[in-house]
Amino acid sequence: MSDVRIHEAGARDGLQNEADVVPTAIKLELLGRLADAGIQSMDATSFVSPQWIPQLADADELAARLERRAGVSYMALVPNLAGYERFAKSPFDVVAFFASASESHNKSNVNRSIAEHLDRFRPVVERVKADGRLLRCYLSTVCGCPFEGDVPVAQVMRVTQQLLELGADEISFGDTIGVGVPGQVRELVRALAGEISLACVALHFHDTYGRALANVQAGYEEGVRAFDSSLGGLGGCPYAPGASGNVATEDVVDLFERAGVRTGVNLDALVDVTDWMARDVLKRPLPGRVYRAVLGGRARKAS
Amino acid sequence: MSDVRIHEAGARDGLQNEADVVPTAIKLELLGRLADAGIQSMDATSFVSPQWIPQLADADELAARLERRAGVSYMALVPNLAGYERFAKSPFDVVAFFASASESHNKSNVNRSIAEHLDRFRPVVERVKADGRLLRCYLSTVCGCPFEGDVPVAQVMRVTQQLLELGADEISFGDTIGVGVPGQVRELVRALAGEISLACVALHFHDTYGRALANVQAGYEEGVRAFDSSLGGLGGCPYAPGASGNVATEDVVDLFERAGVRTGVNLDALVDVTDWMARDVLKRPLPGRVYRAVLGGRARKAS
Repeated sequence: MSDVRIHEAGARDGLQNEADVVPTAIKLELLGRLADAGIQSMDATSFVSPQWIPQLADADELAARLERRAGVSYMALVPNLAGYERFAKSPFDVVAFFASASESHNKSNVNRSIAEHLDRFRPVVERVKADGRLLRCYLSTVCGCPFEGDVPVAQVMRVTQQLLELGADEISFGDTIGVGVPGQVRELVRALAGEISLACVALHFHDTYGRALANVQAGYEEGVRAFDSSLGGLGGCPYAPGASGNVATEDVVDLFERAGVRTGVNLDALVDVTDWMARDVLKRPLPGRVYRAVLGGRARKAS
Repeated sequence: MSDVRIHEAGARDGLQNEADVVPTAIKLELLGRLADAGIQSMDATSFVSPQWIPQLADADELAARLERRAGVSYMALVPNLAGYERFAKSPFDVVAFFASASESHNKSNVNRSIAEHLDRFRPVVERVKADGRLLRCYLSTVCGCPFEGDVPVAQVMRVTQQLLELGADEISFGDTIGVGVPGQVRELVRALAGEISLACVALHFHDTYGRALANVQAGYEEGVRAFDSSLGGLGGCPYAPGASGNVATEDVVDLFERAGVRTGVNLDALVDVTDWMARDVLKRPLPGRVYRAVLGGRARKAS
């Protein structure tokens, strides 16, 4: 039972930003341990060209070796038909597709206009729908663009409508560069609520300026019930080296649980996973606050 | 012109938690540079026994050598009459006094009940008032106590009334262990607003669990206009080693300025001060997010 859905992005969005390639066996252990901790929705990998993202070049092997857990929804990024052919052989549930709310960011990422980018994906969506799978669209730069600065809510709404028309079952609205503030999040969610069901809205905040939790809170207060995050805050933002990336899952879980909002996630178990990932796998501390505070508290109790 | 008042706690609350003693000349440079960056309210030092806090043992020398800036309000902690005698010779404006909202925390800090602690301070308050100075009371553990757990709003309200009766001109409500969540902050501020003017309320959040900015935002939305913070988040919380302490001033400033709320603080100048403190003085990165993101942005522009 949970009141909000926490979507864990660490295995894809997190690990693809790491300099070193994490072994497939470790990734499988990560997905299993996340499920054990109560995570019910998670990124698994991306079916992109191995040349693009060598960190996720093992997507087919990962898919073949995954031991699915009941009640867990697995997501994988699919950029094109070739990617979907690989997805179709996998045990994953949800196809993920990326677009930007700002033209310059979209152009910078895929060298195409937003309209052309969506058009090219239509044949994939036809297959997704024919196969009875779900489509989650990630919409980037919804609070600001590294090239254009402010992105008007009207522009976000325009691309949102295009994604729905394309066939999106859920849209995750991403503050890619972390510049958003709560008032802006409220304005965006209110605009969305006037046009679509908030049941198909997720929010994806980066903690570059420390405001991710304030923005999560604002989104929650406006009625959103799905939030993306990654264990320990794994996944640096490419536009802000040295700064943090995704909001940490433990921080989101603790924000909600402390307020009596059930996440379905066992915080202590999740802290163990994050501690393992930070200490044993990546061998560096991650930016998340709660996991470090919890570990500090355990150390004090033990001493 | 500013819409909110940012009270900078770094020089006292921050530096007293450092293992090394920072030279007086550096502290004076810090206070001067903070004023240059637009900070109009700041902790200067504490007139406590040098045995208690060796990091602030130079309080009298600091007071004697301070070059006051026009329009800046300087605060110093005074625990007793001996401390006030030293304060009375200083150029500082505001006397700061500490108490806890929870009995166990107060007892642990000063080995006295809250009532006895306040009673003992009465002779100091008489002098403060006779000298026409202002009294700021810091009330700790308002969102939770390391010994008692939850602290009911009714208990916070009770001690608040006692502090007002004592003669407090302003009360800074501190979430000492960082456990507060926005809903709790809203509940507290609403209770306060029903009893006293919010003009004499400040909020002081620790970022132990990453929620300080979410709590600042909640306090602001409920009508509070004064917030404590420290440059770079200087000042670890003694109850959570390895975790962060005070919310970072740059993070608070950027949260507000990005939303069009004027702080009077020049963020770029403040980032320079924090960079100097982290790199040249303390020789370690501080937990604040915004100063690191701004420095990262500058490095990218320069490359």
